[in-house]
Amino acid sequence: MTTDAPPRPKARAPRGFQDRRADALATERRILTAVSRVYESYGFEHLDTGAFEYADALGKFLPDADRPNEGVFALQDDDEQWMALRYDLTAPLARFAAEQWDSLPKPFRRYAYGPVWRNEKPGPGRYREFLQCDADTVGSDRPEADAEIIAMAVEGYAAAGLPRSAYALRINNRKLLNGLLSAAGVNDAGQKLAVLRAVDKLDRLGPEGVTALLGAGRKDESGAFTRGAGIGSAATDAVLAFVEAGRDTRAGTLDRLAQVIGGSPEGDEGLRELSLISGALGRLGVGEDQALFDPSIVRGLEYYTGAVFEADIALEAVGERGEPVRFGSIGGGGRYDDLVARFTGQRTPATGFSFGVSRLAAALAAAGATGERTRGPVVIIALDGALMSEYFAIAGELRAAGVPAEVYLGTSGMRAQMKYADRRLSPAAVIVGGDELAAGTVTIKDLDLGRMLAESVADNRTWRDDRPGQITTPRGELVAQIRRIVEAAS
Amino acid sequence: MTTDAPPRPKARAPRGFQDRRADALATERRILTAVSRVYESYGFEHLDTGAFEYADALGKFLPDADRPNEGVFALQDDDEQWMALRYDLTAPLARFAAEQWDSLPKPFRRYAYGPVWRNEKPGPGRYREFLQCDADTVGSDRPEADAEIIAMAVEGYAAAGLPRSAYALRINNRKLLNGLLSAAGVNDAGQKLAVLRAVDKLDRLGPEGVTALLGAGRKDESGAFTRGAGIGSAATDAVLAFVEAGRDTRAGTLDRLAQVIGGSPEGDEGLRELSLISGALGRLGVGEDQALFDPSIVRGLEYYTGAVFEADIALEAVGERGEPVRFGSIGGGGRYDDLVARFTGQRTPATGFSFGVSRLAAALAAAGATGERTRGPVVIIALDGALMSEYFAIAGELRAAGVPAEVYLGTSGMRAQMKYADRRLSPAAVIVGGDELAAGTVTIKDLDLGRMLAESVADNRTWRDDRPGQITTPRGELVAQIRRIVEAAS
Repeated sequence: MTTDAPPRPKARAPRGFQDRRADALATERRILTAVSRVYESYGFEHLDTGAFEYADALGKFLPDADRPNEGVFALQDDDEQWMALRYDLTAPLARFAAEQWDSLPKPFRRYAYGPVWRNEKPGPGRYREFLQCDADTVGSDRPEADAEIIAMAVEGYAAAGLPRSAYALRINNRKLLNGLLSAAGVNDAGQKLAVLRAVDKLDRLGPEGVTALLGAGRKDESGAFTRGAGIGSAATDAVLAFVEAGRDTRAGTLDRLAQVIGGSPEGDEGLRELSLISGALGRLGVGEDQALFDPSIVRGLEYYTGAVFEADIALEAVGERGEPVRFGSIGGGGRYDDLVARFTGQRTPATGFSFGVSRLAAALAAAGATGERTRGPVVIIALDGALMSEYFAIAGELRAAGVPAEVYLGTSGMRAQMKYADRRLSPAAVIVGGDELAAGTVTIKDLDLGRMLAESVADNRTWRDDRPGQITTPRGELVAQIRRIVEAAS
Repeated sequence: MTTDAPPRPKARAPRGFQDRRADALATERRILTAVSRVYESYGFEHLDTGAFEYADALGKFLPDADRPNEGVFALQDDDEQWMALRYDLTAPLARFAAEQWDSLPKPFRRYAYGPVWRNEKPGPGRYREFLQCDADTVGSDRPEADAEIIAMAVEGYAAAGLPRSAYALRINNRKLLNGLLSAAGVNDAGQKLAVLRAVDKLDRLGPEGVTALLGAGRKDESGAFTRGAGIGSAATDAVLAFVEAGRDTRAGTLDRLAQVIGGSPEGDEGLRELSLISGALGRLGVGEDQALFDPSIVRGLEYYTGAVFEADIALEAVGERGEPVRFGSIGGGGRYDDLVARFTGQRTPATGFSFGVSRLAAALAAAGATGERTRGPVVIIALDGALMSEYFAIAGELRAAGVPAEVYLGTSGMRAQMKYADRRLSPAAVIVGGDELAAGTVTIKDLDLGRMLAESVADNRTWRDDRPGQITTPRGELVAQIRRIVEAAS
């Protein structure tokens, strides 16, 4: 390989893909473990599907698309079928449930976690691979199933370490706006979609901007014009009253919604569902501040058919240049009663929630709320090749006592070895030379103490040549001494 | 989506990709946790790289290949660069180490786990996505680093639950055969490769077949002719003496190797390295039966430069049609001193080992040695919509007591709900009707006991209408009763 000397490739990760080190991985793993435990406590079983799905199963492509690579990473298998890496965990679940329906316990409740991939333009903080952790119930159309999903999301965020004040789930139901529009005589699918898009911009454009987008259209500051939904002023007023119906309590919002929704079978059905969700949330102990009804929530995905959920994080974080950073959505979900039917033709109600694990981990890290600081092993300094046997014996004793330990296996001298232990954030280094061996002693350097003392005496000349945190102890007391140091360090 | 009615896609997983349910995932997770803990105890830090690498970084492709999809899943990014899903965890490590070398603690010791993908023809038991778990040391050329990798592999298999008699690591060093061939005047790279391929077939063809392949060539039973290495009879004899030099102890094999290796600088270097590995393995407490020197081990990958390791499993398992199943290799590794230099031009010694987690999990499962049987939650039978509040209260109490519990949220009747609990392998079901509520009691069905009693009295008519394992208890004792049942079930 090296003798043929092809041009040297440049060592670089593909654009939009991350290398993650121990601290970040520990945070992710802690979140996944905590959230999985919540899901299991509610009786959800673990499922993992492969990274690929057939492109038609993902349901994102036109059948005549020549190269269906829009938004996903797709390739053609050797039998000419297009496959794509999953872009979420919901589409693979729908495929699995449809494929295995007859053999599954019903309702089928599963959780899943793993990477998903999106073929989008990468940028700072925008990755093309990230972790999700989902729970879904397939085969129940009871609103209590939605309430349970919401309760698990709330519990999951708490278990992941979010302070209660830092997040909230906002809940809506697609049927409300649909019903309202029907009652107002707006039945065109294109118009309805335009209304959803307009409502989705309420946060950014305010009621005035939304009013424009519901009506004739809106010119933004750059002069670009967005055509409006054109639903007329009565319908516009009704929509605005609807999206502003949110109150401090779920019951309060329900009352207000009953006034503004106008009578329509679909709207009434949406109200009935939200009301049952409200009751179940109370019984499940979900606080009013943790799960709010908010009629302005849209959720982009077209496949939702009823209740929709969105989780926002309100942690204050500071970016690299000291600017405040907002993380926004850290999860979402809803009811999708038609996804399994795409395969089977039989309506199969389903509801679920997806944790944005990578986003949540990044938010926790940025807010300094992770606490993960992976400690390195105890390092046995290796200076004398003839003493390797002793070094390995010490490392083995420490490992047997449950203390991670390694013999330094590079070829550098004392200073570099100490620096290595320091960079690994090791709690201690062990030094054994011929003298110590003859005397039956070992020298232990408490690296945390050393770091602390070195900092506090940095300007004190008389201390400078001292060896802070260093002790010499009988060989037989090595393990006990190290354990004491390691326990203090953790 | 449903109104447009595009043709319904067929629900099926892509060829060669698996859906894995809770039991299989529990086995995998247990293996990964156990092996990670061993790696961490030796001071290895966790690293995760993305699923993709640039194709040139994988080093498997000719620069002029038009569609580099051979053996890997590759696609072209929107900037025309070819990317491929990683086919192992070593190539991404080499890329990462080269990219970050200046900022890393050295030697750099990392472990990693995750899926890898191979674009190969799928078949029964042959998947295109599977889990690996690797540990590597980059930046140490000490043979002790190899010994440590071997010791961790041995400990890792034990931690994963393999009985000691079920596996062994076999160890060789590429330099031995290279040196022997140099001493015998065989210096042509093609001839050397042909020799490696011939030796690799020792298990299957025996010494006679290998002799033919080292010489003029071999005609197999179908009449197909494989050209031989053509290295002459003296060299052939030397190679055969070498590959048969394995003895019961590492020291015994080293003695025999010293006799057959013939003097060459590279062979002597290989012997010196194996000798140091042998010493360190002894100090690390690795038994002779767990790590053998075996000169017939080749390892396919061209990138190995020194020591090579291979782990075989000897668990007896039985296939679907009752036939005995052998699993063979469950891991391997070795020293690859040139992989990082592909990027940097600077020699950077490295050594590592890769656990075949999926293969190991399948072997454990087939041998009935996994023990993972995921229990379902306690199921609160829901028969009366007016009592939902009570059902949720019971489920909440059980969860608060650490017992997974769910309210049945389908719409079926009693019989289907009990069947559901049975299929979930639930330890218990809770039944509350209006009568119980009025009386302040609950009915609990101990499902394990019920199953057992039902089996033992299956032919006893007088018992058939009884309700085995069913008790009625005051509402206040529900949690305590359920805990007792759950503890007995686990």
